[in-house]
Amino acid sequence: MALGKDYATQECSIASALEVIGERWTLLVIRDAFYGVRRYNDFLVHLGIPRAVLSARLRALTEQGIMEKRRYQESPPRDEYVLTDRGIALWPTMRALGAWGREQLTQVQLRVFRHADCGTELGSYNECPACGTIVPVSDVEVLPGPGLSRDPADPVSRALLKPKRLLQPVVIDPV
Amino acid sequence: MALGKDYATQECSIASALEVIGERWTLLVIRDAFYGVRRYNDFLVHLGIPRAVLSARLRALTEQGIMEKRRYQESPPRDEYVLTDRGIALWPTMRALGAWGREQLTQVQLRVFRHADCGTELGSYNECPACGTIVPVSDVEVLPGPGLSRDPADPVSRALLKPKRLLQPVVIDPV
Repeated sequence: MALGKDYATQECSIASALEVIGERWTLLVIRDAFYGVRRYNDFLVHLGIPRAVLSARLRALTEQGIMEKRRYQESPPRDEYVLTDRGIALWPTMRALGAWGREQLTQVQLRVFRHADCGTELGSYNECPACGTIVPVSDVEVLPGPGLSRDPADPVSRALLKPKRLLQPVVIDPV
Repeated sequence: MALGKDYATQECSIASALEVIGERWTLLVIRDAFYGVRRYNDFLVHLGIPRAVLSARLRALTEQGIMEKRRYQESPPRDEYVLTDRGIALWPTMRALGAWGREQLTQVQLRVFRHADCGTELGSYNECPACGTIVPVSDVEVLPGPGLSRDPADPVSRALLKPKRLLQPVVIDPV
């Protein structure tokens, strides 16, 4: 059952947002897209969800203008999925939600987000305490935190052990 | 079906957060608590959800340490529900999600959030552009935006037509 349709009577922009991104797994697909995951099979192995669910989520996200399909190979035809500007505008939400989860729930730090220009760790509002500015998404670097497993099973998680800027495509080592 | 239990294998603080606050209606209950709704019947009329769902959500939020029950009347015994520090720490998420919904989806402004000290409208990171600071939750004032209905049916929505600080109890006119 879709999470959101119940909210239609709510006159509220949070409710409107939940109608679009409130379905199961949707925010984790978007999270992966920020980490630079672009290809169907990479989402599949990293998320470990059924193909039907992943396909449905990618289709909905594309229809809602949050992601777009881009052809990266003609023969055979292959598409990848990248965040649009509307999708990238979800970063403050992702950042805030992740910071809350870490501070209030997991308590261990699984990933570090830092300002690429100066290396300072960002606050929950994506602000750089050293520079005193809110950092654009493209200048955020993600790297493993002390709590993250250093020996993950899937190639996407292994690729994410190296520091990288958000949105830049993740580089998967050939098996 | 709970949204979150599927995420247990995800080593991720966003997934952990979704396990706790990803169920249907939960974020809208928390939103109402930020607006100063505290009493069961006020949540009920403002959200328009079944009693069983509201009771389950308030119980779960209390168990998870996001809200706490406070006795406000002894005879007959009556409790109200208020956000704990863990719950208040969700404000950056609520603010970011609401700002995204407004900018990307509803486009009309339903509610305005401003810095109580200077009256300046806040940005999506809850920052005050005039003061150059990130504003504490207790200094955020919420008031109706141009897109909000000025003649709502329920007393909580009517009470929220007046500007008020977040977290301060909403004052409902007697019927």
